[in-house]
Amino acid sequence: MAGNSYGTLYKVTTFGESHGEALGGIIDGCPSGIELDFEAIEVEMSRRKPGQSAIVTQRKEPDAVQFLSGIFEGKTTGTPIGFIIPNTNQKSDDYSHIKDNYRPSHADYVYDQKYGFRDYRGGGRSSARETASRVVAGAIAKQMLPQIKINAYVSSVGPIHLETPYQELDFSKIESNPVRCPDEKSAAIMEEYIRDIRKQGDTVGGVVSCVIQNVPVGLGEPVFDKLHAELGKAMLSINAVKGFEYGSGFSGSEMKGSEHNDLYNPDGTTKTNLSGGIQGGISNGMDIYFRVAFKPVATIMQTQDSLDNKGNITPMTGKGRHDPCVVPRAVPIVEAMAAIVLADFYLINKTY
Amino acid sequence: MAGNSYGTLYKVTTFGESHGEALGGIIDGCPSGIELDFEAIEVEMSRRKPGQSAIVTQRKEPDAVQFLSGIFEGKTTGTPIGFIIPNTNQKSDDYSHIKDNYRPSHADYVYDQKYGFRDYRGGGRSSARETASRVVAGAIAKQMLPQIKINAYVSSVGPIHLETPYQELDFSKIESNPVRCPDEKSAAIMEEYIRDIRKQGDTVGGVVSCVIQNVPVGLGEPVFDKLHAELGKAMLSINAVKGFEYGSGFSGSEMKGSEHNDLYNPDGTTKTNLSGGIQGGISNGMDIYFRVAFKPVATIMQTQDSLDNKGNITPMTGKGRHDPCVVPRAVPIVEAMAAIVLADFYLINKTY
Amino acid sequence: MAGNSYGTLYKVTTFGESHGEALGGIIDGCPSGIELDFEAIEVEMSRRKPGQSAIVTQRKEPDAVQFLSGIFEGKTTGTPIGFIIPNTNQKSDDYSHIKDNYRPSHADYVYDQKYGFRDYRGGGRSSARETASRVVAGAIAKQMLPQIKINAYVSSVGPIHLETPYQELDFSKIESNPVRCPDEKSAAIMEEYIRDIRKQGDTVGGVVSCVIQNVPVGLGEPVFDKLHAELGKAMLSINAVKGFEYGSGFSGSEMKGSEHNDLYNPDGTTKTNLSGGIQGGISNGMDIYFRVAFKPVATIMQTQDSLDNKGNITPMTGKGRHDPCVVPRAVPIVEAMAAIVLADFYLINKTY
Amino acid sequence: MAGNSYGTLYKVTTFGESHGEALGGIIDGCPSGIELDFEAIEVEMSRRKPGQSAIVTQRKEPDAVQFLSGIFEGKTTGTPIGFIIPNTNQKSDDYSHIKDNYRPSHADYVYDQKYGFRDYRGGGRSSARETASRVVAGAIAKQMLPQIKINAYVSSVGPIHLETPYQELDFSKIESNPVRCPDEKSAAIMEEYIRDIRKQGDTVGGVVSCVIQNVPVGLGEPVFDKLHAELGKAMLSINAVKGFEYGSGFSGSEMKGSEHNDLYNPDGTTKTNLSGGIQGGISNGMDIYFRVAFKPVATIMQTQDSLDNKGNITPMTGKGRHDPCVVPRAVPIVEAMAAIVLADFYLINKTY
Repeated sequence: MAGNSYGTLYKVTTFGESHGEALGGIIDGCPSGIELDFEAIEVEMSRRKPGQSAIVTQRKEPDAVQFLSGIFEGKTTGTPIGFIIPNTNQKSDDYSHIKDNYRPSHADYVYDQKYGFRDYRGGGRSSARETASRVVAGAIAKQMLPQIKINAYVSSVGPIHLETPYQELDFSKIESNPVRCPDEKSAAIMEEYIRDIRKQGDTVGGVVSCVIQNVPVGLGEPVFDKLHAELGKAMLSINAVKGFEYGSGFSGSEMKGSEHNDLYNPDGTTKTNLSGGIQGGISNGMDIYFRVAFKPVATIMQTQDSLDNKGNITPMTGKGRHDPCVVPRAVPIVEAMAAIVLADFYLINKTY
Repeated sequence: MAGNSYGTLYKVTTFGESHGEALGGIIDGCPSGIELDFEAIEVEMSRRKPGQSAIVTQRKEPDAVQFLSGIFEGKTTGTPIGFIIPNTNQKSDDYSHIKDNYRPSHADYVYDQKYGFRDYRGGGRSSARETASRVVAGAIAKQMLPQIKINAYVSSVGPIHLETPYQELDFSKIESNPVRCPDEKSAAIMEEYIRDIRKQGDTVGGVVSCVIQNVPVGLGEPVFDKLHAELGKAMLSINAVKGFEYGSGFSGSEMKGSEHNDLYNPDGTTKTNLSGGIQGGISNGMDIYFRVAFKPVATIMQTQDSLDNKGNITPMTGKGRHDPCVVPRAVPIVEAMAAIVLADFYLINKTY
Repeated sequence: MAGNSYGTLYKVTTFGESHGEALGGIIDGCPSGIELDFEAIEVEMSRRKPGQSAIVTQRKEPDAVQFLSGIFEGKTTGTPIGFIIPNTNQKSDDYSHIKDNYRPSHADYVYDQKYGFRDYRGGGRSSARETASRVVAGAIAKQMLPQIKINAYVSSVGPIHLETPYQELDFSKIESNPVRCPDEKSAAIMEEYIRDIRKQGDTVGGVVSCVIQNVPVGLGEPVFDKLHAELGKAMLSINAVKGFEYGSGFSGSEMKGSEHNDLYNPDGTTKTNLSGGIQGGISNGMDIYFRVAFKPVATIMQTQDSLDNKGNITPMTGKGRHDPCVVPRAVPIVEAMAAIVLADFYLINKTY
Repeated sequence: MAGNSYGTLYKVTTFGESHGEALGGIIDGCPSGIELDFEAIEVEMSRRKPGQSAIVTQRKEPDAVQFLSGIFEGKTTGTPIGFIIPNTNQKSDDYSHIKDNYRPSHADYVYDQKYGFRDYRGGGRSSARETASRVVAGAIAKQMLPQIKINAYVSSVGPIHLETPYQELDFSKIESNPVRCPDEKSAAIMEEYIRDIRKQGDTVGGVVSCVIQNVPVGLGEPVFDKLHAELGKAMLSINAVKGFEYGSGFSGSEMKGSEHNDLYNPDGTTKTNLSGGIQGGISNGMDIYFRVAFKPVATIMQTQDSLDNKGNITPMTGKGRHDPCVVPRAVPIVEAMAAIVLADFYLINKTY
């Protein structure tokens, strides 16, 4: 375990720093014969990238993916898919102010402690830019499993919550607004809130909900590699994530068994689905749904104290980029990681 | 990934069904030369086992661990530690009523679908009895890392929440009451609530909080094997867990960056610790704390509809065992899994 | 990687010292629904165990396997199969003479150096007794893949070589003599040679050849986990193995391409099979065959210098057990490891 | 296990087809703070590449490595090192003759069977060009372990064997001749032999010997991940390898225990070293040495029958590239894989 791979049979390994030459990765284990829709991959990339709207950072990242192997005549060959995403914005001087400074609630300090020094440019490896590679791998995983529908959306921005159950939402509206909230009224309020936060030079957290449909019964490997345990790990590995719950989640902990149990229909489906589509760590064929909590981005445009590497506390003001609410951009990343987890289990559990 | 191993260098593999001959496991990678305190292991086992008090199930499980290898003259040898926990209660007829029936919100149905048939006695492999092996492995992990302090406790039972921050709690009181809540007033209310649930033949969920202290800076392997991602996976792999959050958790998603950022002291510690002791997936030396949500146990003493394997809905009433609130017994399991995760990272990150 | 597991989806983990309470292991990932032939497992165990004939050690090891989980009503359940093999001969005083002494060409010295101390009784973990657990796992793997035929046999004992190509041998005669050489004339000469070695109080090495038939096309995962690379690793992990070659092997290195290339028949089979059933690391449907070299057992009944843990050279004479030629007993171990490797690839490569 | 990664803590994942856009890989787990000698990496690359001399293929492969991440200000950062090696020679028409044809003893047939189709250009993923990525990873591993000396050399070409023990060879002469045989007389004869083979349009196999010095005691993880088992797997994963032996190897199987045992000196070193520096799977501090057998390259300039994908046998003549003896070029690849194995164990076994 060196930390930069996920998966067993659908195995994704990524590399790349925020301001290095390029990001990229290797998808090992993708089955052969999949006719790739490269436009669909680009769509996912554009959903993740900064600068999509007024409420997200305006930094330009033309995330053009170059595939280097594992694809021949438009189809996957079964051999590893290597890809790179060149970084076009490598100006080191943008980040000279953090060279010797540890920004609060960033990974600067721990990287220096762990590795002795760090690529200080823009967060280096700990930058969320790293997730671009995940989106590529997830986009291909989605194409490997076209029958499975994965829809993530923003269900909270700061104190504003969308309480509507997912069953009553129209997922086709997720992309209709910059917040990626399928409920237009809530979306408008959230957007207004984010604009206000932006003016303050501040940031705010939020929650991404995700629904996975048409999953076959049987995915998951108890007792340690339960389906929801892997989903949880995958989500928690995304930058800024602080919590994961599936099915009834934390609110389920307040319930009684008589309320929480999902009674069966004769066909094996259940009348309710507080289980969240997973029982005993194995998919039961019902919708899988979960929620992922994101903290506010640490880089704010206000002045805050930072620590320099000589032990001095010095005030620092965020420069350049400002992403008041990263949560809308996290939507495709959540979907990507879900797709990767499912692809891996799909390969593992269709065996024999 | 066949599902029943956890860890890379401190690697725990378990086996065993609820009513088979024995449970057990192999701890591979435990360093040599640790003088084992067998009594301490038994204490952990007794904390997990049923029948400890009036508020938990009265089923007797004399969880006597037999160590079969990897220990010589009282010390670990560095070779794999094999152990078994014989099942003394193997009467199959206790469970004849569930042979052909799928209990709601149990894993009966998915096991039958996934594997074609199942050991139906008492939940088989999906029984929480499996966690006994984890407690053994965790107890040894704790002894490997005596400098690290791990304290878990019950912070919610159903709707009753202990809101006191962990810093104000006296962990030495955790074992002073059957609920394992260190705040005695809250403990009394929780206990009363559980007694009431018990009378109803119902069950209730809850939350276990966990605090880990004295962790060195540098544990964790970004970008996928972040320390909190592994902690999350480990917790989510415990039976009945529905959610995991660390540091500010879900409530952090409601905050602004200006509120959430942990400002530094000159020595690298932070004034606040909403990060929960982990930044960028790497321990920063501050206390690690997290919360784990447990759903109510599915087996209730009330009559509920179940599904038989011919597609008929038939009423079923829980028999024999009744564990109205499993959460107090989950406390040592949460600690065990935390210890296993830390032991693994400790070995991985002390390299070179 | 803590060292005591093999495999990814058919994953075998073992534990146990030569003179501890028991050996054992966990087979994780065995598919469900296999009706186990326990007698066949015992047959494999009896092939491995000492004391089968006058030419092998007379130490008695009644290797009775106790299965503790993963089997219900005679069939595998898909959950981990835990098993133990109790050690009935645990008298520590047998080995007092090696407590502080490092026997030449044994692992005593490196274990003490690596782990600080060791279970010195009978070799501890480094004893070949450990392979008993592998034979259990291999016997079950064989039953999982009844269509695949695995036949190993002794092709060399010391300087005596059986040169006959495997195609001309009658595998049904392997078990007809204590040497496990299917050519009766060679077997007689080998047996005579071993008897002579025995009288000298010496030991001798040899070679086990193995032929695997009816393997489907497509097993193996280039570029690192090639089928022959995994077979090689599995064989080299067996005690006393010094070399592995498959197909043309070392002699192939002396050949020209024009001689070595296997020309095709129209059906995709090949006229010759110097490739040994594997091309580019993937099975091609032809017979897989390989050879495994075993060094002579280090324990001899002659007096040799040993090193004590204070740095003194002291003469030592082997006591008790004498296994003049371990190679016949290695035959079932080679088959077991081959079966484990195939079972793992079978599960991995039948995916999607 | 998707096949294209090697290692646990020093983990190398590669991608790339012979005539795709680029080869490359990710080295995950390389410790931070290593000042890379890029020239040394280029030297290793140039040792592997074709066209070095008249006796190897004249195809030009300007293997310029581009490092994309994990290096900052000339030093490794501890984050994954991504790199690519662009393919400058991608003309597909060179290989039109093998599009529908399976060359004998190539992987064409099994790739088509396993994956349904293949990138037929120049062997695609099964081309030895893939090993370029291994050489990069090995060159960095060597720099991580400067104290360990790894020297490989050609000890056999076809029927011509260098019998001199490695202790009597001058490793500084390995690079003094195109055969990479440190004995100049043998080198001259081998070179003459290869020239003759070249004239015949044929190819020939050979053996690479490797000696590793200054390895600390204690590397290796019994019982499955023994040091020599991992070395064996790593070597067998190299294209065209048919056999591996270490220490006494196959010839050790002919010996008696009284001859084979390595007697100790008072300091723990041994008088002889038939063990090959490894006992019980753990390095004992003595020189590690092993031999790797390579078959002759399958592509010959003579006419041979091939199979087309419609089941017709058709004559085919090799075109363009001709590598009469690949063994000299295999020397740096053997060293690279040895370095990778050692780097991995070094990180694993220096723990706690």
